Amino acid sequence: MPLVPLPQLLIEPIVRGALLEDLGRAGDITTDAIAASDSKMKTVMAARQAGVVAGVDLAALAFTLIDPAVRFVALAPDGATVAPGTPIATIEGSARGVLTGERVALNFVCRLSGVASATAKLVAAVAGTKARIVCTRKTTPMMRAIEKHAVRAGGGANHRFGLDDAALIKDNHVAIAGGVGEAIRRVRAHVGHLVKIEVEVDTLAQLEEALTVGADAVLLDNMTLDDLRRGVAMIGGRAISEASGRVDLETAAAIAATGVDLISVGWITHSAPILDIGLDYAA
Amino acid sequence: MPLVPLPQLLIEPIVRGALLEDLGRAGDITTDAIAASDSKMKTVMAARQAGVVAGVDLAALAFTLIDPAVRFVALAPDGATVAPGTPIATIEGSARGVLTGERVALNFVCRLSGVASATAKLVAAVAGTKARIVCTRKTTPMMRAIEKHAVRAGGGANHRFGLDDAALIKDNHVAIAGGVGEAIRRVRAHVGHLVKIEVEVDTLAQLEEALTVGADAVLLDNMTLDDLRRGVAMIGGRAISEASGRVDLETAAAIAATGVDLISVGWITHSAPILDIGLDYAA
Amino acid sequence: MPLVPLPQLLIEPIVRGALLEDLGRAGDITTDAIAASDSKMKTVMAARQAGVVAGVDLAALAFTLIDPAVRFVALAPDGATVAPGTPIATIEGSARGVLTGERVALNFVCRLSGVASATAKLVAAVAGTKARIVCTRKTTPMMRAIEKHAVRAGGGANHRFGLDDAALIKDNHVAIAGGVGEAIRRVRAHVGHLVKIEVEVDTLAQLEEALTVGADAVLLDNMTLDDLRRGVAMIGGRAISEASGRVDLETAAAIAATGVDLISVGWITHSAPILDIGLDYAA
Amino acid sequence: MPLVPLPQLLIEPIVRGALLEDLGRAGDITTDAIAASDSKMKTVMAARQAGVVAGVDLAALAFTLIDPAVRFVALAPDGATVAPGTPIATIEGSARGVLTGERVALNFVCRLSGVASATAKLVAAVAGTKARIVCTRKTTPMMRAIEKHAVRAGGGANHRFGLDDAALIKDNHVAIAGGVGEAIRRVRAHVGHLVKIEVEVDTLAQLEEALTVGADAVLLDNMTLDDLRRGVAMIGGRAISEASGRVDLETAAAIAATGVDLISVGWITHSAPILDIGLDYAA
Amino acid sequence: MPLVPLPQLLIEPIVRGALLEDLGRAGDITTDAIAASDSKMKTVMAARQAGVVAGVDLAALAFTLIDPAVRFVALAPDGATVAPGTPIATIEGSARGVLTGERVALNFVCRLSGVASATAKLVAAVAGTKARIVCTRKTTPMMRAIEKHAVRAGGGANHRFGLDDAALIKDNHVAIAGGVGEAIRRVRAHVGHLVKIEVEVDTLAQLEEALTVGADAVLLDNMTLDDLRRGVAMIGGRAISEASGRVDLETAAAIAATGVDLISVGWITHSAPILDIGLDYAA
Amino acid sequence: MPLVPLPQLLIEPIVRGALLEDLGRAGDITTDAIAASDSKMKTVMAARQAGVVAGVDLAALAFTLIDPAVRFVALAPDGATVAPGTPIATIEGSARGVLTGERVALNFVCRLSGVASATAKLVAAVAGTKARIVCTRKTTPMMRAIEKHAVRAGGGANHRFGLDDAALIKDNHVAIAGGVGEAIRRVRAHVGHLVKIEVEVDTLAQLEEALTVGADAVLLDNMTLDDLRRGVAMIGGRAISEASGRVDLETAAAIAATGVDLISVGWITHSAPILDIGLDYAA
Repeated sequence: MPLVPLPQLLIEPIVRGALLEDLGRAGDITTDAIAASDSKMKTVMAARQAGVVAGVDLAALAFTLIDPAVRFVALAPDGATVAPGTPIATIEGSARGVLTGERVALNFVCRLSGVASATAKLVAAVAGTKARIVCTRKTTPMMRAIEKHAVRAGGGANHRFGLDDAALIKDNHVAIAGGVGEAIRRVRAHVGHLVKIEVEVDTLAQLEEALTVGADAVLLDNMTLDDLRRGVAMIGGRAISEASGRVDLETAAAIAATGVDLISVGWITHSAPILDIGLDYAA
Repeated sequence: MPLVPLPQLLIEPIVRGALLEDLGRAGDITTDAIAASDSKMKTVMAARQAGVVAGVDLAALAFTLIDPAVRFVALAPDGATVAPGTPIATIEGSARGVLTGERVALNFVCRLSGVASATAKLVAAVAGTKARIVCTRKTTPMMRAIEKHAVRAGGGANHRFGLDDAALIKDNHVAIAGGVGEAIRRVRAHVGHLVKIEVEVDTLAQLEEALTVGADAVLLDNMTLDDLRRGVAMIGGRAISEASGRVDLETAAAIAATGVDLISVGWITHSAPILDIGLDYAA
Repeated sequence: MPLVPLPQLLIEPIVRGALLEDLGRAGDITTDAIAASDSKMKTVMAARQAGVVAGVDLAALAFTLIDPAVRFVALAPDGATVAPGTPIATIEGSARGVLTGERVALNFVCRLSGVASATAKLVAAVAGTKARIVCTRKTTPMMRAIEKHAVRAGGGANHRFGLDDAALIKDNHVAIAGGVGEAIRRVRAHVGHLVKIEVEVDTLAQLEEALTVGADAVLLDNMTLDDLRRGVAMIGGRAISEASGRVDLETAAAIAATGVDLISVGWITHSAPILDIGLDYAA
Repeated sequence: MPLVPLPQLLIEPIVRGALLEDLGRAGDITTDAIAASDSKMKTVMAARQAGVVAGVDLAALAFTLIDPAVRFVALAPDGATVAPGTPIATIEGSARGVLTGERVALNFVCRLSGVASATAKLVAAVAGTKARIVCTRKTTPMMRAIEKHAVRAGGGANHRFGLDDAALIKDNHVAIAGGVGEAIRRVRAHVGHLVKIEVEVDTLAQLEEALTVGADAVLLDNMTLDDLRRGVAMIGGRAISEASGRVDLETAAAIAATGVDLISVGWITHSAPILDIGLDYAA
Repeated sequence: MPLVPLPQLLIEPIVRGALLEDLGRAGDITTDAIAASDSKMKTVMAARQAGVVAGVDLAALAFTLIDPAVRFVALAPDGATVAPGTPIATIEGSARGVLTGERVALNFVCRLSGVASATAKLVAAVAGTKARIVCTRKTTPMMRAIEKHAVRAGGGANHRFGLDDAALIKDNHVAIAGGVGEAIRRVRAHVGHLVKIEVEVDTLAQLEEALTVGADAVLLDNMTLDDLRRGVAMIGGRAISEASGRVDLETAAAIAATGVDLISVGWITHSAPILDIGLDYAA
Repeated sequence: MPLVPLPQLLIEPIVRGALLEDLGRAGDITTDAIAASDSKMKTVMAARQAGVVAGVDLAALAFTLIDPAVRFVALAPDGATVAPGTPIATIEGSARGVLTGERVALNFVCRLSGVASATAKLVAAVAGTKARIVCTRKTTPMMRAIEKHAVRAGGGANHRFGLDDAALIKDNHVAIAGGVGEAIRRVRAHVGHLVKIEVEVDTLAQLEEALTVGADAVLLDNMTLDDLRRGVAMIGGRAISEASGRVDLETAAAIAATGVDLISVGWITHSAPILDIGLDYAA
């Protein structure tokens, strides 16, 4: 199944917001002064770095919200792997539409492609194992759904989207409840039947308790590779296993080799550098 | 003059938006299930990495919008340099207020401190020269004013905030106008008397033309160190000089040594990794 | 664990919206004309019918958004059972605050108490069985989270909150996929590890397929009591079982007696009559 | 004159809001997983119960806001009487557009048709008298204008739309003013010349006073049939007469027979069950 | 009855919007640079021209939304007559709060006092007659309710607030309906019982028709004084009479002397010059 | 270069807001009652007074947001000089679209043309000098960018758009800083390199200080013609000079003759009467 685009209803508010932030009160005073209203441009959006593309729909919308007559033709869809020079889209229309929308369009596509590309590198690092790379809630304010889409574009999978669509019991919750088991029981009694419960465990003893009470998933936080292996064995398929902590391109393969189902990584959303993508005049 | 905080009118909408994004429809189902309404917590927000702090006001607001009774006491203001372990704030109040607000608060303060810290490193790299580090419009959608504040917290300065508060003539504008001089003249005729005009030049010939027509500032884009030096000499104080392109911690000092007034850097906003900051139970 | 109140961040927008809808452009012209600004009132909000209360926080907010000096003291919290005459709250303050906020406050509390009361009747009807009453997505536009809270106040439980927090495969989805099993497999490949999958089955053959492929929950739609019993037996604890269709106060007990885990009912949210609650002058 | 549709400017915000509420952050994960982007569907929206239809425009908008290419053809306009099986509209287009918009579309059309149908029954009950059935301000938060439109679709008429478009003096207002006459005088002095004044009276003595002072309309609240008859005689065409209290399908005819102009009923908006309308695959 | 203030729910959105418009992205850069955070100011808002004050609540809100600690004490309420030098309020608090809020506060109070003052002059011009001065829908976009409040502050009265709270049949409507009588009949059949109907008539023949069909009010548009007098005589109290067209300080008295009930004037809202009000340092 | 239209992204929110303000909850009840849905109209928008047009795009949008099928053809663009009777646009389409949108469309175009026309008169008054007429921040709340556009339509130029796009040091700032020079220094240290600094001076001594410290522009407030002349001479091209205070059609020429670069005028935005423009039935 190819990557499913986000509904326009979900992405339009943030693209519109970003354009209004950039236009300010007076709009693009430089372009307005220089380009006549009938001046036309043709440009190519192209990668300047190898990576994976995401956010093309948002870039398209940035141009067409400025000028509906701008023609944006996507050449590389979200999830496509690009090399330096690979064209991603052509944008053709009024010089005002193209130049005024350019920065906002690039801000979206560079940032989201950065997330996708970082994810793809980790995904490649664990290739050959069953481990999937998943993101966290450490996302950019107001952009969570879009960044999670970018993670999928990079071949990763998504953890919960917010505080309300799944229960994740953390160390502080365990401390308040007085134990992993009691915490799970409280949540089970509180939530609906379609809500899964994951619990963070720091020790194998806690893991044992979580499995006994029937957690749907367990987050093995900051464990050694040995403990991860032991944990996976203890779990024996009774719950989904997730490893987190100190995951980078060097360590990922070894963590994946322990047999965990998932490896969650904050930095693919909170610290991924952008993918360099630019707009060039087309001949 | 110490760093001036952003008005609450400007930061509240984005903090509120980020909380609503995280709460979704049902709120924090894990904490609601586990923590009684009268359960209290005391935590310390502390740096886990050396760097410069920014976004403390937004973190405070994330907690108090969830529960106005939460007491947030800032210990390190925006702009403060922190070491691993340095406390940034204490947060005390209902367990629900603290745990539900935690992730959004950290998402803001980690990201913005990342911007401040990246800026501070570049600022240190050019210490002893007159060059200032400035940011660009390559910012996170909806967070431009906040990220530009973080750049100031890191010791940097701000370029224009949008398309409307200053004119920046780029290569495409020059191409449309048919020359640097004509582009400047068109803008001058169009904008108000309090709008400065900066023009991007790729060659010293263009620079000469820009100076002749009276640009307020010139952006020397991707020039060699030699050309930068020549450019600064040609300018002779008649315009503000800004260098951009291939600026990193290794190259910044040499660029600054050419005598330019400003060095603009996109990656301090678009690719800075977060500063690791966490919340710990206080004894 | 007592019922957890919804965060004010979630309920304030709809209460504010309802007040603005009622105030229109000119506000409460009748009360403004008649009550002097220093005229005071004391009223009691009381049930005029037996039932279960919900929405008290929204009623309180309706008054205090009009006049922050109005004192609203809740006497019966959400989830409380009331008889005709039972006081739910006292409201004391400016006549303008009380009279202008009255209708919006009552609109919320009557409607939500109606949902809670309808739920409570069904819950009572299945008492002694393990079956829980759950609501659907057939809710009032813009009020889903609030109505689902009212269902909890009435002793019911919540199904998914939207299209995104759990997968529910319906007959049309099965038709498109070409079968229950293929539908489940497609969803499993698409969603994150914390997303449960429920599938609607119309026959026991479909149920068998769903169990084989490993659905988390099965919706036994419009089945006879006999088929429900057979279905529950087939499931044997391997999935959560939910019955739906033709559920009313007469049929609920028999359906529950088949051993299903959940009985879902649309009419507790889409067709519950209000609970009659009024405001009376206090002596 | 046929029923006039509500302007799209007024209905789009609530339809958009309801869709965003249902889509949440991640959209329709079930349909996205199962239906290919080029998968098409043709469905018929049909009544499953006899009644009167309302809200067809909102249903149409729910589909086309999700996918502008969905073709919605209304077969039964607002105000049409339908029998079980009567087609109301055909909806044809992408499976994603149809399935994702379905629930929100039905939530609107079922609820509003429920209001229209309840109204129509009361209207039928008073047929042959001059009495009109009117609604109150006991409407669903944020849906007042839409529900009042549904009342018109059912053959009823509208009372005031809010606190600001007409004055309605209630018992509490009378108590504050010290009498019916003084209350009317205060309002008359306060409001513009195009604002009508209605006053609630509980006794014929109060009615006399209201007529003397010149109320535009009088609300005869909870009076016996005898008192209603006497009241109508006293009024003698000098004011519009409205009866309210204990109005149902059994009592309405007798109340209407007293000669009152209007009978106002809260439950047609606050407690009407939905009209069952569904979406079926078209062959 | 003194002038009733507008509810804060109605005025806060526009004051907040005006502040955000003025703050832009970066806030008050001049004041932030110059005034230390603990710098305090005391100022007096005073009239520099004779007139009538309106909008004091909006001015107060402009300061307190910037800094809740600013103390705004109103000395002259809305509706007060002021002379040059009359103090309207004292504002005391942080220099940042006072200086940043000043322009927005003055923009509201000067503009609205201008409306009130223009109204008051017309009211004075017709003193001794029964004619009331009323405003129209020719108001500033987004400020209708506030400007209508200012008209009341100046001693005037309000016409309808929008297209929906009363029916006003204009010449184009009459042309479409084919006559004054038919137009009134169509509207009567369409609107609720609390909606008044006013009709614009250009001739006494049209007036006769309007009275026959029973218009609630008639707008005698651009008639000569003689025709106005004849019209008033024809009406004989059967409808409210309103004159409009060519009303200014010179003509108003003569128009009022014809016996009309109301004189409507567009320019008190669309063309009133501001009342000059300023902020002065207090000793 | 002709006047550049404002982007639709910037003007749509205020036009939409103004329409919703006028439609209220129930829409245009008069037109809905009278005009059949297929009733068509053709009208001409024409000037009834000589002046300069502005706001034509907003008027167009008012009609097409009500009914996208209405055809609005602009005949006189923003900035055009019109005489009584000059057609500005033709509007053709459904009677409902035309009549419902009329008032909001006219409110925008009359008000903005009023601003343009007042500006044009002052511009004419200073013709032959180098002085430009500029507006201030004394604009209508929420309409600043639009009114500043109208000033440009009238031949004027724009001062800063808000508190953040340029620094303007006023008397109160000078008082806090302790002097003109210190105030400028503080601002210079605070703001970015593309922010110009203007300072208000009341005396020639202050002017001298401002020039010494290097202000970009100086506001010569309320000076005599003699002092203006002396000031211009002292400046000698080192800064932009702006005169303000007591500027009207009589005094403007003499002020301009002193040699100042700019004359700023508040009343062209805060007190300009509308330009009378109406809609007439086309034959």
